[in-house]
Amino acid sequence: MEKILTGVEGLDRMLKGGLIPGRPYIVSGPPGSGKTTLCMQFLLEGLKSDEEVLFVALEEPPNEIRYNTESYGWKVGEVEILDANSDVRRFEPKPILEISSEFKPVPMKNVPFTIRKTPEGESREVTVHSLQQALKNIFKWKNYRRVVVDSITALRQFCMRDFEEHSSTQSFIRFLTEAGKTSLMTVETPDNSGSELETFLARGEVRLHKFRHENGIKRFISIEKYKGSSHLEYIVPMEITERGIIVHAQET
Amino acid sequence: MEKILTGVEGLDRMLKGGLIPGRPYIVSGPPGSGKTTLCMQFLLEGLKSDEEVLFVALEEPPNEIRYNTESYGWKVGEVEILDANSDVRRFEPKPILEISSEFKPVPMKNVPFTIRKTPEGESREVTVHSLQQALKNIFKWKNYRRVVVDSITALRQFCMRDFEEHSSTQSFIRFLTEAGKTSLMTVETPDNSGSELETFLARGEVRLHKFRHENGIKRFISIEKYKGSSHLEYIVPMEITERGIIVHAQET
Amino acid sequence: MEKILTGVEGLDRMLKGGLIPGRPYIVSGPPGSGKTTLCMQFLLEGLKSDEEVLFVALEEPPNEIRYNTESYGWKVGEVEILDANSDVRRFEPKPILEISSEFKPVPMKNVPFTIRKTPEGESREVTVHSLQQALKNIFKWKNYRRVVVDSITALRQFCMRDFEEHSSTQSFIRFLTEAGKTSLMTVETPDNSGSELETFLARGEVRLHKFRHENGIKRFISIEKYKGSSHLEYIVPMEITERGIIVHAQET
Amino acid sequence: MEKILTGVEGLDRMLKGGLIPGRPYIVSGPPGSGKTTLCMQFLLEGLKSDEEVLFVALEEPPNEIRYNTESYGWKVGEVEILDANSDVRRFEPKPILEISSEFKPVPMKNVPFTIRKTPEGESREVTVHSLQQALKNIFKWKNYRRVVVDSITALRQFCMRDFEEHSSTQSFIRFLTEAGKTSLMTVETPDNSGSELETFLARGEVRLHKFRHENGIKRFISIEKYKGSSHLEYIVPMEITERGIIVHAQET
Amino acid sequence: MEKILTGVEGLDRMLKGGLIPGRPYIVSGPPGSGKTTLCMQFLLEGLKSDEEVLFVALEEPPNEIRYNTESYGWKVGEVEILDANSDVRRFEPKPILEISSEFKPVPMKNVPFTIRKTPEGESREVTVHSLQQALKNIFKWKNYRRVVVDSITALRQFCMRDFEEHSSTQSFIRFLTEAGKTSLMTVETPDNSGSELETFLARGEVRLHKFRHENGIKRFISIEKYKGSSHLEYIVPMEITERGIIVHAQET
Amino acid sequence: MEKILTGVEGLDRMLKGGLIPGRPYIVSGPPGSGKTTLCMQFLLEGLKSDEEVLFVALEEPPNEIRYNTESYGWKVGEVEILDANSDVRRFEPKPILEISSEFKPVPMKNVPFTIRKTPEGESREVTVHSLQQALKNIFKWKNYRRVVVDSITALRQFCMRDFEEHSSTQSFIRFLTEAGKTSLMTVETPDNSGSELETFLARGEVRLHKFRHENGIKRFISIEKYKGSSHLEYIVPMEITERGIIVHAQET
Repeated sequence: MEKILTGVEGLDRMLKGGLIPGRPYIVSGPPGSGKTTLCMQFLLEGLKSDEEVLFVALEEPPNEIRYNTESYGWKVGEVEILDANSDVRRFEPKPILEISSEFKPVPMKNVPFTIRKTPEGESREVTVHSLQQALKNIFKWKNYRRVVVDSITALRQFCMRDFEEHSSTQSFIRFLTEAGKTSLMTVETPDNSGSELETFLARGEVRLHKFRHENGIKRFISIEKYKGSSHLEYIVPMEITERGIIVHAQET
Repeated sequence: MEKILTGVEGLDRMLKGGLIPGRPYIVSGPPGSGKTTLCMQFLLEGLKSDEEVLFVALEEPPNEIRYNTESYGWKVGEVEILDANSDVRRFEPKPILEISSEFKPVPMKNVPFTIRKTPEGESREVTVHSLQQALKNIFKWKNYRRVVVDSITALRQFCMRDFEEHSSTQSFIRFLTEAGKTSLMTVETPDNSGSELETFLARGEVRLHKFRHENGIKRFISIEKYKGSSHLEYIVPMEITERGIIVHAQET
Repeated sequence: MEKILTGVEGLDRMLKGGLIPGRPYIVSGPPGSGKTTLCMQFLLEGLKSDEEVLFVALEEPPNEIRYNTESYGWKVGEVEILDANSDVRRFEPKPILEISSEFKPVPMKNVPFTIRKTPEGESREVTVHSLQQALKNIFKWKNYRRVVVDSITALRQFCMRDFEEHSSTQSFIRFLTEAGKTSLMTVETPDNSGSELETFLARGEVRLHKFRHENGIKRFISIEKYKGSSHLEYIVPMEITERGIIVHAQET
Repeated sequence: MEKILTGVEGLDRMLKGGLIPGRPYIVSGPPGSGKTTLCMQFLLEGLKSDEEVLFVALEEPPNEIRYNTESYGWKVGEVEILDANSDVRRFEPKPILEISSEFKPVPMKNVPFTIRKTPEGESREVTVHSLQQALKNIFKWKNYRRVVVDSITALRQFCMRDFEEHSSTQSFIRFLTEAGKTSLMTVETPDNSGSELETFLARGEVRLHKFRHENGIKRFISIEKYKGSSHLEYIVPMEITERGIIVHAQET
Repeated sequence: MEKILTGVEGLDRMLKGGLIPGRPYIVSGPPGSGKTTLCMQFLLEGLKSDEEVLFVALEEPPNEIRYNTESYGWKVGEVEILDANSDVRRFEPKPILEISSEFKPVPMKNVPFTIRKTPEGESREVTVHSLQQALKNIFKWKNYRRVVVDSITALRQFCMRDFEEHSSTQSFIRFLTEAGKTSLMTVETPDNSGSELETFLARGEVRLHKFRHENGIKRFISIEKYKGSSHLEYIVPMEITERGIIVHAQET
Repeated sequence: MEKILTGVEGLDRMLKGGLIPGRPYIVSGPPGSGKTTLCMQFLLEGLKSDEEVLFVALEEPPNEIRYNTESYGWKVGEVEILDANSDVRRFEPKPILEISSEFKPVPMKNVPFTIRKTPEGESREVTVHSLQQALKNIFKWKNYRRVVVDSITALRQFCMRDFEEHSSTQSFIRFLTEAGKTSLMTVETPDNSGSELETFLARGEVRLHKFRHENGIKRFISIEKYKGSSHLEYIVPMEITERGIIVHAQET
């Protein structure tokens, strides 16, 4: 089975050629460690081979993601984005809509500069159930090869009830696996430790480290787990530059 | 997209020109670290350009805020303030009023020197729901460009039930974003660590640090997260002077 | 606005002249750190200017407070004391009385040498609700300028149910503020750390420190928070002498 | 008010003459630190002045307490002991008896050498309620001056439900205070730290320390809190000898 | 009252002659520290004087215990063993049998080499209630002098519901005491700390320590608590040899 | 009783000849420490003697396990694998199927290269109950000598409800023991510590350690517990090579 490239050259070297396709992986790290940036580079790599790629946005509205991404000068217009942010909550007694058929990805280039507003009459609360159902439909229309879920942390905090966290996360990851997608899922960790449950469920974990030093911030990257493949066991320095993430892993 | 100034010159340098407008940011720090002061300087900066600015008071009564702010010699008369403090609790069985239409901001200069008293017949308990509804109405009447919420900590502790903390905070922040406000929200942290949930939800975090040293208190400021922008990665010394906060960040 | 003296000369120096009147403050510290003593000196200072002053006793019976206080040789006879200790619990099914109208302060000089006994037929269980109601009535009859609540810790542990701790404490402190009282509220902390919630709600915190050293106990005092005023930022040595608390803060 | 002797000479020196009578005190310490021994010496001191004294046994059966105490060669025959140990639990659906009128203290000399057996037909489960009721009756018959409760830890773990721990402990201690008893209550602490709640409720705390050193165990004693009295602030070495506890506090 | 020997010579020296009979003791320690081995030596010591002795097996099936014990070359044939392991759980709605009359001890020599299988039609779930009832019956038939319960940890984790842990453990230990048995109860601790509740309830605790050193594992033994007796206060080295536990305590 | 070989030569030396057959053992360690690899070598060792061996897959789909295993160049075709992964969760109100009779192991060589998809009409949620029932049936058809459960962590997190974790795990392990299987059960631990409950229930624990050093990752292996046998007490270095795990334990 051939591996696929991550879009970050040094990381591919660490992974001995890239990722085993069709499996789910975790990208973990603290706030500001570059998780979304790495994921976007992964999708852009797909565009190079004319793959269809999908970004599932759970944390920020698409217009902000577009703005932030374009600041790197990348051509992300063909990346499709699915806005899975919940609407502003209405507190009226009428039941909240959960119409998964309403979710539709749009190419990034069509994302407007302002935020989509919660409509007056109803509001959409995203649950893991409705998102899964929506993705199922979406996957029928288009054969996405690469999928990014940004983030599983948001999925757990806002779209699940406590008692179903374990089995719903498991089911969601199984769902992506059955659909044959190579997927990166971001997980925000308060410190430089990983996230136990997600790492347990995924087939691999790329961890981003961020340490405050005397002279600013030092960044590192490591492979914490990679089922079915050997990989570089060192922690490797990385940078977030104006052109995206660069990993300083030497040729081995 | 142009950035807007924070009102603290050194902080603007740290932020490479200021804040991306229309997004929510966190100002975190322990008690006495200068959070409210920084927020007030942010609003005063808006007044310079004749912007309408709003201070949402959840922790202290407006008369005390006025008194405390004026001790810096600032002209805060045109800052509008919304008193979102709960009334004294009545324990009678009659239901507590939640009339969001009653909330009205007033210019700081009209805030009386004494506290507003809980009326005899009824009492107002602020919930995240009623506050959100009130702000929605208020935003229709006047186009506030800058909004301060002081504090999200109070909003969570007094205006929410435990089980809805995550999704209500998310919804409240989404609401401010949809309304297009550039907003600073204060979060009180017991030590010099940040606040996981709010930082996760906001687009940036300005953290205020306060350390007790042999010769009194040392103060620092740092940018912990800033989505869509590069920023200074150093922790920078700051002071709270008689004229407000001064950040000692050098020109880069 | 003029500040008022605390009754401890060195502490007034630390506070740059004393306390801003009409606001609630916390006095925190571990067992045996001098919290009640400091509060009593605060009330005695009021007596010097013929102010009416009130001590709300939640932890110990008034006769013990009188005995303990008189051991300093102070004239506390005119300090009024409100016995807000719960009675011995009866386990009979008949409902416990919560008649707030029964609470009446008495001058310390009239406190008998023995404890007030729980009457046979009924027993009084103090709740934050009944205490608040009682104080409301009491404040109508007499214009107390200084109020001590000893302690908020007892109020939270014995007079509230868990689920209402946050909002009830907030309401109680708001109540004292609306009544225009300058109030000191003691909080017992297991170690030399402060109490997060109360400090958050109050306008200032005076913290008492107690360390066991090779040669007995060392005592210190610090101002952890003082909204609307600058203050000494050092930790200052203090003593509990036969004449009360002495703070060794130099003139600045 | 005159202080009363504790029965341990060095401890009286630490307490500047002994304990203020009529108040509740805590004796805290880890397993094997001498808590029960110290309490027994406190009761024996009462016997010297022909006081009536009571030992409330919640942790061990009276026959074992008698055996253990007599190993010091003390004349404890006149110490009255109340067996407040729960019976073996029956799991039959018939309700457990809680007849507080059945509790009767007996002089230690009449305690049989074997354990009292749970009767076949019924079993007695001790609750804080029934114990309090029983003591109330017992105090009518005889005027005990000194009361030992061994231990409050057992009272909390076996005789209370979680939700009532705080207010029941408070009520129980208030009950002893109203009854005018000078009481020592033991509290077992896992390490050498104290017990927050009980210390908070009592008027003083004598803490027993036990450290494992290279050459066996080192023992110390300290006064952690003593309301209304000054006291020695040092930690003082002590021994458990064949004749009981000896505290090496020098004359001051 | 004469003490009885533990079966480990050095431990008897540490205990100043052995254990006070008729009381419950704890043997605590991490996995693999020798708890079961020590208990078996305690029972074998009883056999030397023709005492009846009982091993209550809650953690492992009797056939494995027999196999493991015989590997030391001991004659354990006359040790009676009670299989108190729960059966495999059936999930059918029919109620699980709790027939305490079914429990019967057998001499170790009659324990078959294979595990007793859960019968098809029903399954036995052991509760603290049924075990206590069974032991009550068993104690009528035969006068066991020494009883080992291996382990209280299993009793708590598998035979009790959370809310009854404290009082059921207390009742179970009281039951053994009333029956006049000298009993050792094992408690598994994750590290080298003890178990608070059980130690609190028992009259003594023998703790087994196990440290991983550069050259393998170092073992130690200590007496943490021994009510009614003095004891060696040192931590003493021990070994698990081919002939069982040897404690290196010198003659004092 | 003869021991059986583990398939890792050095580990057999550490175990003084291998494992006592018919008992349950734990293989614990952090992600990426080689747990599944060690278990697969254990099954391959069985194949050498023409034993029937079973791999119960709870964490990953069989096609990925096959792919990952074959990367070592092993002939795993005759290892039978039982796919006990839950299906993607349907949120429709119709009850989820729990048909244990549907579970069937297949030889690894027949595992397809793609994942088994959740059927449209129904979905299978694995519970500890249905898995146990399924294994019971499966064990009737074929006499498996070695069974691997990968992993107990997944069994606990996804197949049990919280309140039954303790007794269900106990019952499941008892079930394997009654069936006479020699079983290895993997447990994922967040750091290099073990898992308290599983270790408590199993007869032995092989722990895999993984430390990040300056020059990559160092791996070690240790025997933490081995009931009924002596074993090497050192922590021993190991490697995961292209041919599987190699343990560097010297001949003793």
